[in-house]
This record gives sequence, structure tokens and C-alpha cells, in this order.
Amino acid sequence: MEIKNFSDFCTKVLPDFNQFLDQKLQTEIKQTTLRDAMLYSLDAGGKRVRPMLFLAVAYSSGVKFDDLSKYYDIAGAIELVHTYSLIHDDLPEMDDSDYRRGKLANHKKFGVGPAVLAGDGLLTQAFYWIAKSSLSTDKRMAAVRILSHNAGPMGMVAGQMTDITMEDKILSEAELTTLHKEKTADLITAAITIGAFSAGHELSTHLVQYANDIGLAFQLKDDLNDADDGEDDNKNTFPNLIGKEKTEEKLAALIKDALNAVLKENEFDKNLLVSFLDYFKE
Amino acid sequence: MEIKNFSDFCTKVLPDFNQFLDQKLQTEIKQTTLRDAMLYSLDAGGKRVRPMLFLAVAYSSGVKFDDLSKYYDIAGAIELVHTYSLIHDDLPEMDDSDYRRGKLANHKKFGVGPAVLAGDGLLTQAFYWIAKSSLSTDKRMAAVRILSHNAGPMGMVAGQMTDITMEDKILSEAELTTLHKEKTADLITAAITIGAFSAGHELSTHLVQYANDIGLAFQLKDDLNDADDGEDDNKNTFPNLIGKEKTEEKLAALIKDALNAVLKENEFDKNLLVSFLDYFKE
Repeated sequence: MEIKNFSDFCTKVLPDFNQFLDQKLQTEIKQTTLRDAMLYSLDAGGKRVRPMLFLAVAYSSGVKFDDLSKYYDIAGAIELVHTYSLIHDDLPEMDDSDYRRGKLANHKKFGVGPAVLAGDGLLTQAFYWIAKSSLSTDKRMAAVRILSHNAGPMGMVAGQMTDITMEDKILSEAELTTLHKEKTADLITAAITIGAFSAGHELSTHLVQYANDIGLAFQLKDDLNDADDGEDDNKNTFPNLIGKEKTEEKLAALIKDALNAVLKENEFDKNLLVSFLDYFKE
Repeated sequence: MEIKNFSDFCTKVLPDFNQFLDQKLQTEIKQTTLRDAMLYSLDAGGKRVRPMLFLAVAYSSGVKFDDLSKYYDIAGAIELVHTYSLIHDDLPEMDDSDYRRGKLANHKKFGVGPAVLAGDGLLTQAFYWIAKSSLSTDKRMAAVRILSHNAGPMGMVAGQMTDITMEDKILSEAELTTLHKEKTADLITAAITIGAFSAGHELSTHLVQYANDIGLAFQLKDDLNDADDGEDDNKNTFPNLIGKEKTEEKLAALIKDALNAVLKENEFDKNLLVSFLDYFKE
């Protein structure tokens, strides 16, 4: 099968992957309220960027297209962790968002208690999916290690804590970069690095550079979009700290750096990862 | 070293294990609010029953006393998961408890947002500790699988959801047994079965029976203690459903069944697991 670019890759993989996600949770979770609350957010129309990046790296590293479904458990685990983080992030004493992607936030639909538990359930189930994957024990263990490191209190959870406790303080550019790295980039980096490991590759510094760049670029693009919509006036974001124009320059520099990094990579086909950068031009 | 019984085992292991837990988190977690909130609940004076059961099973299965420290990461992971569950359990929209073991609940000390994140951090770090343990990859992967299964939405999280959504309904004895199995027994069973796996044993049905019995016995003992203190009048508990006396009979029957089960076990030294049953006579 010919895959033209990252967008084409997603078009060809997503329907199958989405069905997998939905069916797996439907089958596994017997507690009905919990299953409903978990599926509500998992099926809320996310673009699946993180699992698609994971699968794209695995594919670019030599995994055959028809074998990609063997990697769905781990791709799914990454999406479960992302979904849990959004549910807890939206809670009243966190970011206090009533809506997410035009739908009621999980806690507005099910209540705060069930939303906390839906998040807890998604996070824990992610590690179960990795443990039950058919990949080799070494690959699964690498996935557990990288995901728990980057999504936990040494990564994403730390960033989230800084975010909610520093809301009233103005952060420096360095502090803000650390916050974004932990809160957003670390999970994206995990998706990419676990993709390389799962396909049997050692990590290259170029790939890590690419991952870190696009992780931070993600946050900048999100904050620029929110600034365009007139949101986030008091939040610690780059548009608020250095202005929209300089943030756009910073985003462009990150994409350029990511491109340079991936072009130095010799271990795999660069086409998908290069074309992924179009995401930031949309 | 001579170990007289379970209590003696705890006396000899706990100081070293507690120091390990505290130092490990102190070193790993750089975000200060997160570290403080995680350590606050981890160091809140819990009896460490679950990690001690895990270590006792490993020791009874043939692990030398001086080698037990190699098992601390996994014992610690089990305690991290237990601690996370208590923090989230105490939240206002869950059990709404302002105090735990005579100290302010985590969310009363740090706020609801930080308490949610402290729980998230402890849960995720548990899997990191397992991944970084020095035990064989197969043993670590079994620990990830059993822990995520029993503590997640197919176990503890499911029980917790039933608990908070069924508060106003009167459950049947069978429904209440399922709730307690999931909410309380599954994590205790995980501690015991991971202990056997970690020491290189296959699971015996006798050990699983013992684990399930004491898991349920735990909840009954807790509910009987709370009933004595005049608490929990409207909760779904066995003392409220079938009365104190019948609950005491049920507890005695569970302990007897656990004893019979463990006495049939031939794979390891039974002394510690038999003497653990004294816990329910205190």
C-alpha cells in the first residue's frame, strides 16, 4: 500500500484504530457508569495525534502496514493516558472547563466524582493494555517505563501541578518552557520514543530532538489558536508573555529545528515525520 | 535471622522499608508542591499492610531475608497505589472525608486540584517503580499486569464507582460482596499474588482463596470498627445490611476459610501467612 504522507496515513489507519479502541473498552469494562464515562471522553472526537505519531514512527521504522494492528494496544494506551489527562484537567479545581471539543466536559456530564474515577480508570487501564500486548516483554517493559516516566510526577503531572499552582504568578520564559515541556511535550515525546523502541530501534538523539520540538510546538500552536479566539487572557502562555508575533516566530523556529533533526535521521523513512510538520501550518 | 510471626516480620522490615519509600520519592520528584503532597499522604502513618503482605509472601516463598530489599520497589509500588486510592477516595465528591488517620485529608491540606494530581502522580509512579525494579523482565511484567488489572477499572476503580453511585440505594448481599471484592480485596489479592510471582512461583488456587478471603475480611473489620465508632450509618456496609453480629460471624468464617486454604498450601512456609490472621483479632 502506498502511503503519501502523515495525513494519508491517518486516513488509512484511523477508522480501524478507532473501532479497536471503542470495542476493547466496551468489552473489558463491566461497571456501566465507569464504562460510559470512560468511553464518553475517549470517543469525544479527538484527532488521535499521539497514537498516530506512535504508529507512524513504528511504520517508518520498518513495521509493515498490515502488522500495525499488533501495535494498537500500545497506541491505545497512549491515547488512554492523554484522555485521562484531559478529564482531570477540566475539573473545577483544575482548569475548570465546562466544555471540551464542543461537548460537555466529563464532570459536567457525569459529575466530579465519576469523572475523577473515569480518569483513574483510563490511566490504569493504559498499563494493562501494554502488559497484555503481543509485543515482546522487553518492548512492553520499555513502553511501561517511558510512559510512566513521561506522563507521571517526573513529567506531565508535574507540569500540571506547576500550571495550577502558578496561575497567579508570571513565569519566566525558561519556567514556561519547562511547564510546557512537562505538561504537553513529554507525552508526545513518549509516543515517538516508544514507537522507535517498539519497532526495535535504539533511540537516536535526532528523533528525541524532533519529538521535543514538536511537543513544544503543539502547545504554542494551541495557545496561538486560543489567543485568536480571545481566550486565556490571564494564563501563563507564550502569546501572553512575549506576544503573538514572537510566539509565531518561536513556533516557526521549532518546526525548522524539528525538520533539520529528522532529516539527519538515517534509521528510517523520513517521509511521514517530515509531512507531519504540515500539521502546524493548518 | 529468626522471624517469629507476621508481626515480628513487620517490626524487622518496616523501618528500612519506610526509609526507602520516603527517600525514593524525595529524590525522584522535583516539583516541590507535588512532592510535598505525595509524601504527605505516603508518610501519614499507614500500617503498610499490603506491601508487608507482598514481602511476607515473597519471603515465605523462599526469598532470603537479606534479599528482600530487591523487592522494595514493587512493594513500594503497591503502597503508592493504595495511597493514591485513599487521596482520591477522600475527595469532596467521593467519600468527602476531611480527616484520615487523625490528620487533615490531602485535599484539606493542599486543595482539591493538588490532591487529584498527588493521586495521579502516585498511581503513575507505581508503574515506573515496577519498570525500574531489578527483578527479571517477566516478573516485572507480571506485576504490571496484575496491579493494573486489580487496581483499575476491572477492579478497584470499578468498586469505587459502584460505591459512590449506589450510595442512596440499598445493595443486595451479593452486590455488596462484589463492591467490597473490587474496592478492597482486589488490591490485597494483587499484593499476595504478585508476591508469589515475584518469588518465582506459579499461582496456587489455595493462595488465591486465602487472598480473596482476607481481602473481604479487611473490609468487614473496617466496617465493624466504624460501626463501633458510630460512623457510616447510611453507607452500604455489612453491619448496616445484616447487622453487627452476623457480620462478625461472616468475618470469623472468612478467617477460618483463609486458614484452611493456606494450610493446604505446600509450596512455601505457612507460618507468616497463618500468623497474619491474628491481625483480625486485634
